[in-house]
Amino acid sequence: MTKKIIPIVENILSANEKVALENRARLDSAGVFSVNFMASPGAGKTSLILALFDSLKDKVRMGMIDGDLASSIDADKAAEAGIPSVQINTGGQCHLDAVMVRDALGKLPLAETDLLIVENVGNLVCPAAFQLGTHFNLLVASVPEGDDKPYKYPSMYRNVQALVVNKTDLLPYIPFKMDYFLRGVEALNPGLVSFPLSCRTGEGVPAFADWITAQVQHGRKKNPD
Amino acid sequence: MTKKIIPIVENILSANEKVALENRARLDSAGVFSVNFMASPGAGKTSLILALFDSLKDKVRMGMIDGDLASSIDADKAAEAGIPSVQINTGGQCHLDAVMVRDALGKLPLAETDLLIVENVGNLVCPAAFQLGTHFNLLVASVPEGDDKPYKYPSMYRNVQALVVNKTDLLPYIPFKMDYFLRGVEALNPGLVSFPLSCRTGEGVPAFADWITAQVQHGRKKNPD
Repeated sequence: MTKKIIPIVENILSANEKVALENRARLDSAGVFSVNFMASPGAGKTSLILALFDSLKDKVRMGMIDGDLASSIDADKAAEAGIPSVQINTGGQCHLDAVMVRDALGKLPLAETDLLIVENVGNLVCPAAFQLGTHFNLLVASVPEGDDKPYKYPSMYRNVQALVVNKTDLLPYIPFKMDYFLRGVEALNPGLVSFPLSCRTGEGVPAFADWITAQVQHGRKKNPD
Repeated sequence: MTKKIIPIVENILSANEKVALENRARLDSAGVFSVNFMASPGAGKTSLILALFDSLKDKVRMGMIDGDLASSIDADKAAEAGIPSVQINTGGQCHLDAVMVRDALGKLPLAETDLLIVENVGNLVCPAAFQLGTHFNLLVASVPEGDDKPYKYPSMYRNVQALVVNKTDLLPYIPFKMDYFLRGVEALNPGLVSFPLSCRTGEGVPAFADWITAQVQHGRKKNPD
C-alpha cells in the first residue's frame, strides 16, 4: 500500500484565532470591552456577573454571552436581572470557540454595550486553549474546589490575565490555605492580579467592580469613538 | 483542484473502545473489580478514595490509578495512606483514555487487588465520552457546585451508573436544594443509585462503602477464580 502525506491546509486553532481576531476588531470598533470568564462548574461565574451588574449598572452598560452544554438557566437569570444576554448551547462541546461567539455578537446591542462578559462552559481544561476575541481571560476559582488547583490545572492558571477567588464566606468551614493556593498561582503566572471575594455576602466585590470599571475606561481611551 | 474522499480507517472512539475491552478482560481475569471516578475539579474524588480505604482496608484490597494534567498530589496522598497507586500525567489532555489505563495496569499488583479505582481528570464534560474498561462509571458531585449541575452537564449525568453527592456538611451554608438536584438526575438517568455523604465528617460514608463492597462481591461471583 502506498503511503501518502496529506497536507493539512489549516489547523483548527489557527482557524479559530482568525475568527477571534475578527471578533476583537468588531468589539473594538463598537467600543465594547470584553472579558472571557472561565471556571470549574459551579465556581460562581453567573453569580459574579450578577454581582457585577448590581454594582455597575448605573455607570457601565453590560452585556453577556452565556455558554453551556445545555439549558438556558444562566442566561435566563441574567436576562431577568436586566442584562442583555445571548445563550449559546454548545451541544456537548466542552468549550466555546470564536465562531460561536461571532454568531452571538450579531444578536447583542453592541452599540449600547460598554462591557461584554462571555461566560464559558464550566471546565478547567479545554476553554484555556481557545481564544474568543475578548480583551482578556479571567478565571473564577472558588474556595471549595481546594487550594491545590493551580498545581493540578496549570494550563488554565497560566492562560488568564486576572483571577477571582470566590466563596471566601466558606473559608471557616473548609481547610483551604490561601497562602499555598496563591504561591501556586504566582509560580505559574507571576504578578497575576487576584480578587478574593464572596458573591454571596458581597465582601470584596466592590474592589473587583472598581478594577473592571478601570479596565473598561482604559480600553475606551485606547479606542476612542 | 480535484477533491478526494479520504476514508477514515478507524475513529478515535472505537480504537479507544477496543483497548477498553482488553483492559476489562485483563481486570476480569485478575479478579479485579474497577470503577471510574469522574467529577468536577475539587469535588472530592481523592477524599472519597481515602475515606473508602479507611473504611474497607481490613476486608477489600484497594488499588488506585490517578489521572491529572500535572503533579502527583493525589497519588502521593493515596500512597501515603498505603494504597498501591499509579500516577498518570496526561500532559494537558482533558480526560483519561483506555491506552493510558492499560499502561498503568502493568504497574499495579493486580493479583493482590480486589477493587481498583481510576480517578479521572477533574472535568464534567470530556471524560464521559471515553470508556476505560472499568466495570462502571461513578460521578462525584458536590454541594458547593450548585443544584443545577445535572441540567447543565447532562452528558456526564447520563453516562454514570452511580452517584455520590459529597460535602453535605456544607448544606447549612449554601442554598442547595437537594430535591431540585435529584429531580434533574432522575430525568436524565432514572433510578440512578445515589449516596449523599460527607468525606469530611464521615456521614454517609459507611452506606456507600457497604454498597461498593457488595458490588465487588457480586463481581467476584460473576467471575470466580
